[in-house]
Amino acid sequence: MKVIEELKKRSGELTDLHHIMALLQWDQEVMMPSSGAAERADQMATLSGITHRKEVDPALGELLEKAAENPAASTIDRALVRVMRRSYDQNTKLPEEFVEALTRLTSEALHVWIGARKEADFGRFRPYLEKIVEMSRQQADYLGYAHEPYDSLLDLYEEGLTAIRVQEMFAGLKGPLSDLVKTAMDKGPELVIDRDLDQTLQVRFAEMVLKKIGYDFSRGRQDVSTHPFSTTLGHHDRRVTNRYSPRSIEFIFSAMHEGGHGMYEQGIAAALGHSALDCGVSLGIHESQSRLWENIIGRGLPFWRHFYPELQQLFPEHLAGLSVEDFVRAVNVVKPGPIRVEADEVTYNLHVMIRFELERALMEGAMTVAELPEAWNAMYRKYLGVTVDSDANGVLQDIHWAHGSFGYFPTYTIGNLAAAQIWNTFTRQVPDHEAIIEAGNLAAVRKWLRENIYRHGSVYPPEELIVKVTGEPLSPHYFVEYLRARQGC
Amino acid sequence: MKVIEELKKRSGELTDLHHIMALLQWDQEVMMPSSGAAERADQMATLSGITHRKEVDPALGELLEKAAENPAASTIDRALVRVMRRSYDQNTKLPEEFVEALTRLTSEALHVWIGARKEADFGRFRPYLEKIVEMSRQQADYLGYAHEPYDSLLDLYEEGLTAIRVQEMFAGLKGPLSDLVKTAMDKGPELVIDRDLDQTLQVRFAEMVLKKIGYDFSRGRQDVSTHPFSTTLGHHDRRVTNRYSPRSIEFIFSAMHEGGHGMYEQGIAAALGHSALDCGVSLGIHESQSRLWENIIGRGLPFWRHFYPELQQLFPEHLAGLSVEDFVRAVNVVKPGPIRVEADEVTYNLHVMIRFELERALMEGAMTVAELPEAWNAMYRKYLGVTVDSDANGVLQDIHWAHGSFGYFPTYTIGNLAAAQIWNTFTRQVPDHEAIIEAGNLAAVRKWLRENIYRHGSVYPPEELIVKVTGEPLSPHYFVEYLRARQGC
Repeated sequence: MKVIEELKKRSGELTDLHHIMALLQWDQEVMMPSSGAAERADQMATLSGITHRKEVDPALGELLEKAAENPAASTIDRALVRVMRRSYDQNTKLPEEFVEALTRLTSEALHVWIGARKEADFGRFRPYLEKIVEMSRQQADYLGYAHEPYDSLLDLYEEGLTAIRVQEMFAGLKGPLSDLVKTAMDKGPELVIDRDLDQTLQVRFAEMVLKKIGYDFSRGRQDVSTHPFSTTLGHHDRRVTNRYSPRSIEFIFSAMHEGGHGMYEQGIAAALGHSALDCGVSLGIHESQSRLWENIIGRGLPFWRHFYPELQQLFPEHLAGLSVEDFVRAVNVVKPGPIRVEADEVTYNLHVMIRFELERALMEGAMTVAELPEAWNAMYRKYLGVTVDSDANGVLQDIHWAHGSFGYFPTYTIGNLAAAQIWNTFTRQVPDHEAIIEAGNLAAVRKWLRENIYRHGSVYPPEELIVKVTGEPLSPHYFVEYLRARQGC
Repeated sequence: MKVIEELKKRSGELTDLHHIMALLQWDQEVMMPSSGAAERADQMATLSGITHRKEVDPALGELLEKAAENPAASTIDRALVRVMRRSYDQNTKLPEEFVEALTRLTSEALHVWIGARKEADFGRFRPYLEKIVEMSRQQADYLGYAHEPYDSLLDLYEEGLTAIRVQEMFAGLKGPLSDLVKTAMDKGPELVIDRDLDQTLQVRFAEMVLKKIGYDFSRGRQDVSTHPFSTTLGHHDRRVTNRYSPRSIEFIFSAMHEGGHGMYEQGIAAALGHSALDCGVSLGIHESQSRLWENIIGRGLPFWRHFYPELQQLFPEHLAGLSVEDFVRAVNVVKPGPIRVEADEVTYNLHVMIRFELERALMEGAMTVAELPEAWNAMYRKYLGVTVDSDANGVLQDIHWAHGSFGYFPTYTIGNLAAAQIWNTFTRQVPDHEAIIEAGNLAAVRKWLRENIYRHGSVYPPEELIVKVTGEPLSPHYFVEYLRARQGC
């Protein structure tokens, strides 16, 4: 068999195994009866053991060597070799004992972190975090890097990303965001839902919106879970979940967010199916596609000029007196606070920036874990003007470090920047976009995104994809411009 | 590691893989979006390939040899060796090319059968069935048998079952059933539902019944599927499905039937979890547990004295004028017809008997496939007094032969006989059973079944289990006695 054919066969088999794992996880979150957890963990361990042995098979390494000697003919084949090489390296560069030790450590740390956060007791979590930082630096050494250790961790989540590159983009963000926080703060009226929203009606509205923006229910489904997520179980099976609170309209933005992830994956070209290319290329690009729908479109006036009458009709007791303009202002209120996941679009990136700077200092050895809480609180005062009242609402708030996921946070902001830059290109190419959206023709937007982003799957590395679509590398400029326009500054 | 420990480890891993496969199937039937089918088939093929290689691993064979030399100490360990030996033999005795050829043949045959049944054209299916019969006889030779080829196929579905044994039991059934058909026929009024039953209310009633009979929703769930089924995804995850028609109360009996399967598996002792013993021991015993709830309890007057008022209250427009006695008579009407799956409790076993005699003749070579339709129709006339109007309603009605499942049908009747015999023991040990059921104390019945049947999982071979519970081997006597009482003859 030709090298590339053999690689495709192996990629197909691994794709099957990853999708089976995704089903085990989806079912666990969405369907599994409460008592099933322990045995489900066994099943996952069994399956991931089998998958891992296939992923680190030396014969796969040899095939990838051969593929490098005889460069593949087509763009797609070359991309497949690139993506498989990347996974193979990530899977084989770390010694197995190291991976096992890290898994054990983070699994213990997770439990300790939950308790520590509950008690607002950083001291309890500190020895674990110290070990995790130490092992993450070791991990960076195993993986290798050109410039600084943190680079190799950033690259795990966003192919090709470096600390210098993040620093560069954040430098262009920091000042404008701080200004925006001051000018935009507390401008609009907040939305107060003072009686329960019927859940059946919430689900109906969310499904209607998903259908209208182009999420394909014949190739997916929407269910309820504790935390909304999207997942892929097959080329034609990309599911989303949502959650519904009686006193919040978050479910709408959550539907758009997960729907954005789902549509990205649903839009991947059929030719890439059953292979490692059949998924979004990176966390940052994925997040750009969810936030573009959730925020740029979903918090815009044109979108709500179309959908607000329907929402008002479903919930007349809650929204009868509120104009569409006031509604849109309310869902765009800027208000600094201590918690990242509750942050608005403007302040969110300041939360990320703080984590980036702290992670980088930890990875460089320029800061110790012991110094972390104080540094955290100082930065929140400086960047957001927020006083952190307790470590539970401060340095202990995120699960990422307990997981050992250093390098993950910046992808959130990469997503925001990419969304705005892609949107800018779209609006230049489709000047009547506001009228199109106001008419409810969201399919036109999805079509453009499909043509320019979705269909490529993982064929182009993230930064290359951005240049291909927008004509230039990722820049903070368009995001700042977008926020200023949205906030009317 | 000790031999038995190593076997347990392997059995645990195989159990995980089988449960993962069960999830892939459950999701396909219940949740998967319509477009996901093709890739799901790939995923199943990948997983079953991996599982199969583990199942036929020569090292497993060697472990089983060693285990035979040093008989395991405990009953459970000995049972585990017995069940694993059985699977290993079934998996290794057939050459791989043979299995592949049979899979290809039956997968083609399935498609042809669907078309042939639609067109009532046996001629189209005939060449495929001829090959399937030929390969099934070959299969019997590979598997080995003491007396006649059909025995080895019967044993596939019901451990230890032989044609002679089935013949013996059926001989005691045939006469009494024929008499019953004549005396019981067309006695009661049929139940006519002449306006739609609300589906939400159907689901609510089915769930209420399931809860009351003791199906544990914290270790299972009930969903909707095209054909009702039950499945196991883990020791604490035994799910059932149901279907709802607007003009039928079948959903109640279907809930009891699948609930019976589910409760059997939910009741298996925790000590047997994560091993090959953690499932019902055979198709026949499984069917006895579903039919005991569906028919013996679920079509009985004491049960309905408790539940009928609630059913009537939910559907007053449909049932207001109907007394509980007439309702029970209506759900026990005997009416011979050409279709097995629509048959009542009495005639059902005559349908099975016909298939048994035909299968046996085919396997012995005493009959050709060409002679089958005529033989079929003649037997329907003789045993059931039914004239088959078309092969679609005759020899082409069942999927089993297209699947290559010769030897499966008798397990349905084994289930009926076992249910009645077990029930007889129960009623002798619990004389006030009618009052208990009428009071809605179904938990007491489940507790008895759990203690005597459920908890043993696959520890005792089916016939041994029957003797252990009832004190004698399986006999047609109790079933005939039960039917006569039910039909008031």
